[in-house]
Amino acid sequence: MTLLLPDADRKTMLPPLAETGWAAVPGRDAIRKVWKFRNFSQAWGFMSRAALAAEKLNHHPEWKNVYNVVDVTLTTHDCQGLSRLDIDLAQALDRLAPEADIERNHGEPVSGLCEQRSRMA
Amino acid sequence: MTLLLPDADRKTMLPPLAETGWAAVPGRDAIRKVWKFRNFSQAWGFMSRAALAAEKLNHHPEWKNVYNVVDVTLTTHDCQGLSRLDIDLAQALDRLAPEADIERNHGEPVSGLCEQRSRMA
Amino acid sequence: MTLLLPDADRKTMLPPLAETGWAAVPGRDAIRKVWKFRNFSQAWGFMSRAALAAEKLNHHPEWKNVYNVVDVTLTTHDCQGLSRLDIDLAQALDRLAPEADIERNHGEPVSGLCEQRSRMA
Amino acid sequence: MTLLLPDADRKTMLPPLAETGWAAVPGRDAIRKVWKFRNFSQAWGFMSRAALAAEKLNHHPEWKNVYNVVDVTLTTHDCQGLSRLDIDLAQALDRLAPEADIERNHGEPVSGLCEQRSRMA
Repeated sequence: MTLLLPDADRKTMLPPLAETGWAAVPGRDAIRKVWKFRNFSQAWGFMSRAALAAEKLNHHPEWKNVYNVVDVTLTTHDCQGLSRLDIDLAQALDRLAPEADIERNHGEPVSGLCEQRSRMA
Repeated sequence: MTLLLPDADRKTMLPPLAETGWAAVPGRDAIRKVWKFRNFSQAWGFMSRAALAAEKLNHHPEWKNVYNVVDVTLTTHDCQGLSRLDIDLAQALDRLAPEADIERNHGEPVSGLCEQRSRMA
Repeated sequence: MTLLLPDADRKTMLPPLAETGWAAVPGRDAIRKVWKFRNFSQAWGFMSRAALAAEKLNHHPEWKNVYNVVDVTLTTHDCQGLSRLDIDLAQALDRLAPEADIERNHGEPVSGLCEQRSRMA
Repeated sequence: MTLLLPDADRKTMLPPLAETGWAAVPGRDAIRKVWKFRNFSQAWGFMSRAALAAEKLNHHPEWKNVYNVVDVTLTTHDCQGLSRLDIDLAQALDRLAPEADIERNHGEPVSGLCEQRSRMA
């Protein structure tokens, strides 16, 4: 059973991810980032590497793709919220794609995710 | 400029696609099909072949993936509705994945798409 | 440091792989299998799934592809011969591709690999 | 039937490819280039994009991969030598991978390929 990410880890791990473009998904204990590439080929090259990273972690994204845009949401179904696996996968994806445009303002600040216990009250 | 699929073609081409699991997307001139595989690897093998088919046709899907599920919507942004390219890509995808479970009842009957002119009136 | 596969494991693990088409590479402590698909798309679907399996095991094949043919050689560079990782990857690849034609007679019988110590004497 | 690349095209098209690392394969009317990436993931991202380019051109490479190295040979089986398709695919691959190390000195100068008629005499 995967554990929900403890508050202490949320406070140290989510803000650096927010700086790279990850935002809180409204109404969910989940994070989301949107990459915009130049074309489908470049988006697909990223997705192919992301698939390797996901399978290696045995943790998979909710993701969609329309031509040059890749839209990734991370959460852990097993614990119905963010776990350490989501942080690991987010960091792994951030290492793959330095050249894309990153969409901003597609969600809420991650500060809203930093206290998981209060969210569940 | 890509042309909207004429009614005559809709009436002959959409019903056979409906039999394989394509359904009309409510409120859009678009079709959608949902494949359920055994695991991510099998889903990814399908997506990798679908990416080749899409790039070859120079026509790309709106698609999302969550672990073993691949959810594909086809429409042509260029003409804001179904074109011959969507039919070609749908047929190409149908040739790739004989072993997956196909979701039914995820949309409306394609008969609602068979007269594009009336939809636009 | 990865260990060479012990003789006892070679004798139990290599013959079942030989039955699925793996053969000994002449002059090397390595096994090889050749899949023949119907076209590039089908070969690529297999390779895409094989890439996931390899990355997950953190053990990668020597492989080549020409259109519909995928030719895979497995050995462990770290120990300059067959290790348990090669067996694991061979078994993983065998689970992926039931529909391809498998080339026979492209190498030597695996019985020649069953005693690694004598090979090195 | 695909045509062998005429001498005039060889003289204008092969030298620029040689500058990016393509070399003549000894004894064949073929060109080869070797990319060295940082790891398998990066190599696979390149291969995934190369597969799209190949399928789009309906012309496929002879290629092999060992971990971070991708070794591509281009020739046209149809005409048993270089055709315009090989030039197109070589140029397409060159557009994909600016960050890899390119192996030099793995073949002969392309000047040896610039007069195909004399090669066949």
